[in-house]
Amino acid sequence: ELKSLFKEYHYADIAEILDELNQDEAVYVIKLLDSETTSDVLMELDEDIREKVLRNLSAKEIAEEIEELDTDDAADMISELPEERQEEVISNIEDAEHKAEIKELLAYDEDTAGGLMAKELVKVYETWTVAGCMRRIRGQAKDVTRVHSIYVVDKEDKLIGRLSLKDLITAKSDQKIAEISNSNVDWVHVKDDVEDVAKIMQKYDLEAIPVVDENQTLLGRITIDDIVDVIREEADKDYQLAAGISQDVEADDSILELTKARLPWLVLGLFGGLGSVFIMKGFEHIMSTVPSLFFYTPLIAAMAGNVGVQSSAIIVQGLANDSVKGSLLNRLLKEIGLSLINGLALALLVILFGFIIGQDTVESVAIAVSMMSVIVVAALIGTFVPIILDKRGIDPAIATGPFITTSNDILGIYLFFVLAGLIIGF
Amino acid sequence: ELKSLFKEYHYADIAEILDELNQDEAVYVIKLLDSETTSDVLMELDEDIREKVLRNLSAKEIAEEIEELDTDDAADMISELPEERQEEVISNIEDAEHKAEIKELLAYDEDTAGGLMAKELVKVYETWTVAGCMRRIRGQAKDVTRVHSIYVVDKEDKLIGRLSLKDLITAKSDQKIAEISNSNVDWVHVKDDVEDVAKIMQKYDLEAIPVVDENQTLLGRITIDDIVDVIREEADKDYQLAAGISQDVEADDSILELTKARLPWLVLGLFGGLGSVFIMKGFEHIMSTVPSLFFYTPLIAAMAGNVGVQSSAIIVQGLANDSVKGSLLNRLLKEIGLSLINGLALALLVILFGFIIGQDTVESVAIAVSMMSVIVVAALIGTFVPIILDKRGIDPAIATGPFITTSNDILGIYLFFVLAGLIIGF
Ligand SMILES: [Mg+2]
Ligand SMILES: [Mg+2]
Ligand SMILES: [Mg+2]
Ligand SMILES: [Mg+2]
Ligand SMILES: [Mg+2]
Ligand SMILES: [Mg+2]
Ligand SMILES: [Mg+2]
Ligand SMILES: [Mg+2]
Ligand SMILES: [Mg+2]
Ligand SMILES: [Mg+2]
Ligand SMILES: [Mg+2]
Ligand SMILES: [Mg+2]
Ligand SMILES: [Mg+2]
Repeated sequence: ELKSLFKEYHYADIAEILDELNQDEAVYVIKLLDSETTSDVLMELDEDIREKVLRNLSAKEIAEEIEELDTDDAADMISELPEERQEEVISNIEDAEHKAEIKELLAYDEDTAGGLMAKELVKVYETWTVAGCMRRIRGQAKDVTRVHSIYVVDKEDKLIGRLSLKDLITAKSDQKIAEISNSNVDWVHVKDDVEDVAKIMQKYDLEAIPVVDENQTLLGRITIDDIVDVIREEADKDYQLAAGISQDVEADDSILELTKARLPWLVLGLFGGLGSVFIMKGFEHIMSTVPSLFFYTPLIAAMAGNVGVQSSAIIVQGLANDSVKGSLLNRLLKEIGLSLINGLALALLVILFGFIIGQDTVESVAIAVSMMSVIVVAALIGTFVPIILDKRGIDPAIATGPFITTSNDILGIYLFFVLAGLIIGF
Repeated sequence: ELKSLFKEYHYADIAEILDELNQDEAVYVIKLLDSETTSDVLMELDEDIREKVLRNLSAKEIAEEIEELDTDDAADMISELPEERQEEVISNIEDAEHKAEIKELLAYDEDTAGGLMAKELVKVYETWTVAGCMRRIRGQAKDVTRVHSIYVVDKEDKLIGRLSLKDLITAKSDQKIAEISNSNVDWVHVKDDVEDVAKIMQKYDLEAIPVVDENQTLLGRITIDDIVDVIREEADKDYQLAAGISQDVEADDSILELTKARLPWLVLGLFGGLGSVFIMKGFEHIMSTVPSLFFYTPLIAAMAGNVGVQSSAIIVQGLANDSVKGSLLNRLLKEIGLSLINGLALALLVILFGFIIGQDTVESVAIAVSMMSVIVVAALIGTFVPIILDKRGIDPAIATGPFITTSNDILGIYLFFVLAGLIIGF
């Protein structure tokens, strides 16, 4: 009765339900369902839930699930298993071709096109006729859920073109494939970064893209549903990094996981704050003469942090979209101009505020001018730290967030006291 | 010669080049190219560049471009024109059916399924035979770049099923469509939010989804390439909001645009900072007795800000993915537990630091304990502000970033002085 209830559901919905159950219940449901459904359900589960469920299945049972999966998902599922189980599961796969293909896919890095592609695709030789091709496709297409493009290869399996099912059904049956195929085919290299693959597919509005090796041999294809997941995951990761969360966590993860992801950044922030304590201690002697400077330090830190985060966020996004162009000098001048405008507007507000609360005018001006300088410096740091990280091959996304706010806090407060000191004279 | 050079390029590449040219050059190239290419190039241009180019084209010229576009892009391009030009351009469209379809699409809100769908789709009646269907499809498919699914409707044009080209070519030619069609078809309502459409297409790995009205009448379809753009734009917007940037800007936008997007948030931060000045001024009398409290205020503000941003980012993401489940009380308890653990670890570090620099022990403990309380409160604010905003129908994404850091700065500093005062006694 439970079984027939689940029959009506899509596997993605079943996975959503299982994510909410406890481990025993989830394993129970998985063992209850037909193997063809369970494999898809397993793939859709939260990674941590899947891990728990797989721990309760034998190598043979996992191999049976693997048989039902497309090669890309099969390889992903195996790669999540502990090393020693991987071999055992692979040796239990009965279909020799499926096994060989999965083993091939396991060799690629997960952040590359090879790590994302599936071996399932429809391939035809340029020398075939349309009629012969239709016959072969009826065979190949059984294994391929969605056909998208049909890839045309030469006798050495090199990718030389593509055609659509539509082209095929609108062609005459005695035409040669070479005559109706489109040689203008997009492809990616098996070692290309997945983020670059995502950019290409988004730019050219592709639903599938073939993957080739250095000899142009057709190796597999990547479909848009997997790219959509990559885009979402990348966006989530960058968002979390900007917020000071260092690994992929969700609101419903355990306290331990959440602490591991959050505490390191807070400790970084704490060290930054302790650095500020040191700096301010160094100016203790002016506490009795210009106490107001100390009242303004949270404001200075906030401004330095906010400006730095704004600047770095724009650059990080620009780098991700390849839209940061032009020379560094131009960018420098622009950023200085922008921060001077913003800084000036804010400085005027600070002076106005000082006037309203009856603060000493020299002090107000000193605070406003120092704040303005802090803003300019913060903007420059926010702009150039991500650019430098990116040039060194480090993900610039880590620059937005605690990293920038912490360094800008310290530097900002130091600069503020030094500059205010120069103006007021202490 | 320039013309033949551009002929080799994909329209998305040409658009990328034009984005870098000045207005006159861009208009020159657009007028030079074939109309079929230019319409696609225009759609791919940066919105601000497109606006400038269209200003240099006559209503008739724009109408000619519109004729070449799919209805979804055509409607989008028209809706970007100034009101008075819209009518003029529409009246210049010659194809009556295209004109009527575009007018229909213009009526939908751009954030809804209707605003994203195109009228181009392949539709067959359940009573047709496979052979008859093939004949009709050869006709319809001319206007439809990619077929994806074929939608099956009853005689009142109500969506009742779908089939794939693959189903069609593997069926016998005298079978009725009703026999081979799949009645299990996903669809969205024309007024559904685009973010919900994106979630459905991502969850079920769809490449296209039909759109229906309240009578289940088939109105149009949405394709995955447009959904990919929605996902990217939404992610970019949320990222910018979290960084305190209030409208869609890019690194290469003008200083004026960047200032408009950034200055309002900085002013908010400034007011917050001035609030802190007030609060600290109120504690001026203890400056000579416990000066160290003042040295710790940037640290307190940083901790309150960082913790608040972490908590809100996780909730904002959870709300976006519908993964925030369970009762508010459970969430409250979890957040308190989590922040107590983090707060305790950080408090111990503060006490250790105080010991190393030879600070008075009571003062160190007072600082550490107050900081811990500030962290707990900041986590609660970071968690519940987005939840409350979401419940009131306000985008919770605005809660991460300057909004949370500013309110947490003020509240944190106030709490810090009050609690430290209670412990030290002043
Ligand atoms: Mg993989
Ligand atoms: Mg696109
Ligand atoms: Mg497009
Ligand atoms: Mg896949
Ligand atoms: Mg990234
Ligand atoms: Mg998880
Ligand atoms: Mg701060
Ligand atoms: Mg639209
Ligand atoms: Mg999916
Ligand atoms: Mg999938
Ligand atoms: Mg479209
Ligand atoms: Mg959103
Ligand atoms: Mg722009």
